[in-house]
Amino acid sequence: MTKPSGTSFHGVFPYLVSPVDADGTVRSGVLQELVRCLISEGVHGVTPLGSTGEFAYLDNARRCKIVEDVVAAAQNRVPVVAGVASTSIRDAVWQTEALVERGVDGILAVLEAYFPVSEDGVEEYFTAIAKAAGGLPVVIYTNPNFQRSDLSLPVIERLSRVDNIRYIKDASSNTGRLLSIMERTGGRMKVFAASAHIPVCVMMIGGVGWMAGPACVAARQSVALYEAARAGDWERAMRLQRPLWRLNELFAKYSLAACIKGALDLQGFRVGDPIPPLRPLTPAARDEVAAALRAIGALA
Amino acid sequence: MTKPSGTSFHGVFPYLVSPVDADGTVRSGVLQELVRCLISEGVHGVTPLGSTGEFAYLDNARRCKIVEDVVAAAQNRVPVVAGVASTSIRDAVWQTEALVERGVDGILAVLEAYFPVSEDGVEEYFTAIAKAAGGLPVVIYTNPNFQRSDLSLPVIERLSRVDNIRYIKDASSNTGRLLSIMERTGGRMKVFAASAHIPVCVMMIGGVGWMAGPACVAARQSVALYEAARAGDWERAMRLQRPLWRLNELFAKYSLAACIKGALDLQGFRVGDPIPPLRPLTPAARDEVAAALRAIGALA
Amino acid sequence: MTKPSGTSFHGVFPYLVSPVDADGTVRSGVLQELVRCLISEGVHGVTPLGSTGEFAYLDNARRCKIVEDVVAAAQNRVPVVAGVASTSIRDAVWQTEALVERGVDGILAVLEAYFPVSEDGVEEYFTAIAKAAGGLPVVIYTNPNFQRSDLSLPVIERLSRVDNIRYIKDASSNTGRLLSIMERTGGRMKVFAASAHIPVCVMMIGGVGWMAGPACVAARQSVALYEAARAGDWERAMRLQRPLWRLNELFAKYSLAACIKGALDLQGFRVGDPIPPLRPLTPAARDEVAAALRAIGALA
Amino acid sequence: MTKPSGTSFHGVFPYLVSPVDADGTVRSGVLQELVRCLISEGVHGVTPLGSTGEFAYLDNARRCKIVEDVVAAAQNRVPVVAGVASTSIRDAVWQTEALVERGVDGILAVLEAYFPVSEDGVEEYFTAIAKAAGGLPVVIYTNPNFQRSDLSLPVIERLSRVDNIRYIKDASSNTGRLLSIMERTGGRMKVFAASAHIPVCVMMIGGVGWMAGPACVAARQSVALYEAARAGDWERAMRLQRPLWRLNELFAKYSLAACIKGALDLQGFRVGDPIPPLRPLTPAARDEVAAALRAIGALA
Repeated sequence: MTKPSGTSFHGVFPYLVSPVDADGTVRSGVLQELVRCLISEGVHGVTPLGSTGEFAYLDNARRCKIVEDVVAAAQNRVPVVAGVASTSIRDAVWQTEALVERGVDGILAVLEAYFPVSEDGVEEYFTAIAKAAGGLPVVIYTNPNFQRSDLSLPVIERLSRVDNIRYIKDASSNTGRLLSIMERTGGRMKVFAASAHIPVCVMMIGGVGWMAGPACVAARQSVALYEAARAGDWERAMRLQRPLWRLNELFAKYSLAACIKGALDLQGFRVGDPIPPLRPLTPAARDEVAAALRAIGALA
Repeated sequence: MTKPSGTSFHGVFPYLVSPVDADGTVRSGVLQELVRCLISEGVHGVTPLGSTGEFAYLDNARRCKIVEDVVAAAQNRVPVVAGVASTSIRDAVWQTEALVERGVDGILAVLEAYFPVSEDGVEEYFTAIAKAAGGLPVVIYTNPNFQRSDLSLPVIERLSRVDNIRYIKDASSNTGRLLSIMERTGGRMKVFAASAHIPVCVMMIGGVGWMAGPACVAARQSVALYEAARAGDWERAMRLQRPLWRLNELFAKYSLAACIKGALDLQGFRVGDPIPPLRPLTPAARDEVAAALRAIGALA
Repeated sequence: MTKPSGTSFHGVFPYLVSPVDADGTVRSGVLQELVRCLISEGVHGVTPLGSTGEFAYLDNARRCKIVEDVVAAAQNRVPVVAGVASTSIRDAVWQTEALVERGVDGILAVLEAYFPVSEDGVEEYFTAIAKAAGGLPVVIYTNPNFQRSDLSLPVIERLSRVDNIRYIKDASSNTGRLLSIMERTGGRMKVFAASAHIPVCVMMIGGVGWMAGPACVAARQSVALYEAARAGDWERAMRLQRPLWRLNELFAKYSLAACIKGALDLQGFRVGDPIPPLRPLTPAARDEVAAALRAIGALA
Repeated sequence: MTKPSGTSFHGVFPYLVSPVDADGTVRSGVLQELVRCLISEGVHGVTPLGSTGEFAYLDNARRCKIVEDVVAAAQNRVPVVAGVASTSIRDAVWQTEALVERGVDGILAVLEAYFPVSEDGVEEYFTAIAKAAGGLPVVIYTNPNFQRSDLSLPVIERLSRVDNIRYIKDASSNTGRLLSIMERTGGRMKVFAASAHIPVCVMMIGGVGWMAGPACVAARQSVALYEAARAGDWERAMRLQRPLWRLNELFAKYSLAACIKGALDLQGFRVGDPIPPLRPLTPAARDEVAAALRAIGALA
């Protein structure tokens, strides 16, 4: 089987959770079952090791194992875009090469920071990942809420001129910024929404889809929303959007990984708890999440 | 002539600048000329004493004078929704009564803060203004960037149950929050966008218009955008939206009042400089603003 | 009686509260009684219209009335350094002139901001106040917690070269910044501590005293502390400092004006409640404050 | 040779830099030379893997190697208190055990965070490290500027009751908070200052010393300052403090690791550059640092 070469990334890419036991063992079975289920529900790609995937809580060995499992389960039916995140260029390059070897179709690149990083340093970091990714497409990822760095518009513009940096996922809540990015980069940087943006709005202004945790527990509903928006049927899209938004609100209110792991557990996926000292949902929060899932038909 | 009673507020409400001389004298002539011009270009209402109107730099006497001028120039052709802003309830009530006496059609209510205010205090503040406004509709206004207080969703929900608090203008850049407000308040709180939101997106999710400084210098273009969105012609709306967005970017980049006063001066309105220690646009910034105006046909 | 001319400001300057009735009337009687009591307990000056004095909640007429009352009660026994605070230069100059006419001995200058102010604008603002103050000394005041502007070290250095700008009160919690200011301004800018700094530490590094709300309710104890520090008896100073610090903690925990007004009420001064929508202390907070006062002998 | 058992930590603990080549190899030679030199200049302990030690940029293998080198060079002449930092409890425990095996005398415990951590989670994290440290003393470390978590006073109080959690290093700039910690924990939690505090002030209020990067390049001067403060000779302490403060200012102005690595290079230690994408000092910054070193006699 060959890669779907030349295809551009678009549509719904669920951010996968990382199921790990208390002793750190990856639960490969449930992870692969989740990937197969999401693909059968029509998602356009899968993304291990995003924020929801608790990348910040896993060492490189576990990160590699998780990606291996996801690539094996996806069987080239949809692209696997896996996260690389580090504070240092050397480690980020190492991670990228390791994931490319494991057969991913694209890299989601995150810059972690402890000390402030200069704009030149930011550019150097992402450019080094792009080079290490070989010909594979790179999605740069910015999340000012959790990361201690941000990508300024001038740096994004410069990075849009790197050949295989072709996408950005912006996890701010500032939708206007997405339009600014599109206008500035003249089509060289395609935009994926994050869970803090309203997908319909991002599609309307020219986005190509979304990468987000909630799609993990509402894949079918997310795909239907995407198709309505793609078809320009905005009225239908908004009708589908409204009840789905509640899930994004809960996702922001409760810790991301706790929320999605809890929701998946409700749906019968034994993905376990978030990694300590992160805590699982309280019973009250679990009830809130269950109600939101039921309202969209994602829980019986 | 009678008030357009029963009409609900919607559409494009430019935030007016406050033209004042160095000695503090209001320039009534140019202010009234601006109002007449905006109405002739089709705006659906005007809003003196918003952020762009430098309310935070004017005493109550000047505030009243400005509102008198605007009401006189509007001649009941469009509603005048005037700003009330204070740190204390007593003063806010005084301002509200003074503006009602001067014939405004609605109140835009702002809570200024020095010390943190409790949720109960916030509710009490806006409820007192609503009562003082008599039957007139009140737009509550939140701007977390400049104000030292914010309106939480639970407080917004409580305020939506006050009879004449019928609108909110949210000047965060978080468009998702607007959808959350709409979903929570079940139609009791209609939403106006601010300049940090993309108007097309806010209209798409159910907003009723926008109140913003840039509409002061691009009234015709803003009205065309509003009409396309209202008609559900989203393709045309986005075509109109893209070049207009540049103006919102500059508005955020440069000090709001400086940007709009400078742009109006370029268009021939002698509105003067922002109030010291605020500074006028630098020549380079003025050139940037001029280019953005030319690109949308708002400057010859 | 003549002014204590040539004397430099130093020691304990309580920030006075502003007692006002619900209808806005200043309670002159209790205000003057408080001033006389503080002077009899040995304070080195008094400061109406600081943060604790709720300047942000009072109009210029009430501000003037309060200063008149304080000047009359002080009877030239200690200097009165009164607050001027505005967003606009024109209004700040007006306030300064009004207070000078009313016989104050110095000005505490605060820059309020809504939009960001350039460094040049900040310098222009304080320089204009200094000029309006005639020969009177000016204390510049920075409080990054509540004000939307801050004084950078370069601007402080420039202002230290203005003839009658001779003091700074820094209400950050960053004591190192005070040492930086002293080192940079070579003695031209004397430093008063605020309630967020430990007075003993500020005295140790070369400060000249403190201007703070808690001194209003612990005047005698504050003066004893000051004298120990002045005498270089640091052991005794720290012994006095420890129990006093609890009051500063409560002052920061609860709204400043609410805390001091509540404490004064416990001590028998009928200064009333903070100005709505600010709220008085809850009964539990009142008990905490009472316990802290008792621990230092400031309440029977 | 036996451990200095029962001895409590106090005095000057330089935060060591982590010299690594571009390919990630630890430069053991220069690291050990630096440790020997600092001990010969009188420091009371050394701390590898603090912020200055770029812990956030190193994997566990390199961290262990660095600690091995430092322990070997210290030869039990002074205590080695080494940093443990992680987002996950499992990894933090692993690190702690690995460092204990390598012969450290104490653990400096840092909680890294990506998602917010509950107070219970924070307590659990530090308690798990304390347990893993066996009988060794633990210094808890909080740095709100760089870390995405903070230690609240109630959590600090609870942690002070864990047997071997005996010290805190607070890297906020809020010196008053240190006094609050001391008052709250009744001597169970001894306090080390960080570079953002003025050491003399922290000693005055009861601190036991400081752990900071600048002591790496001004060891002799730091020890003299400590001894003056310990002896209660505050006048002499302040005389020594003033010129030293300039170094702390530069340390805050420029990236910590860049500043100390650059300063050490000026002093002849070939510690190399910070880890990319961190950047070395610019030539202008290097000149500023050189001037500050010369002013205190730390550079010829």
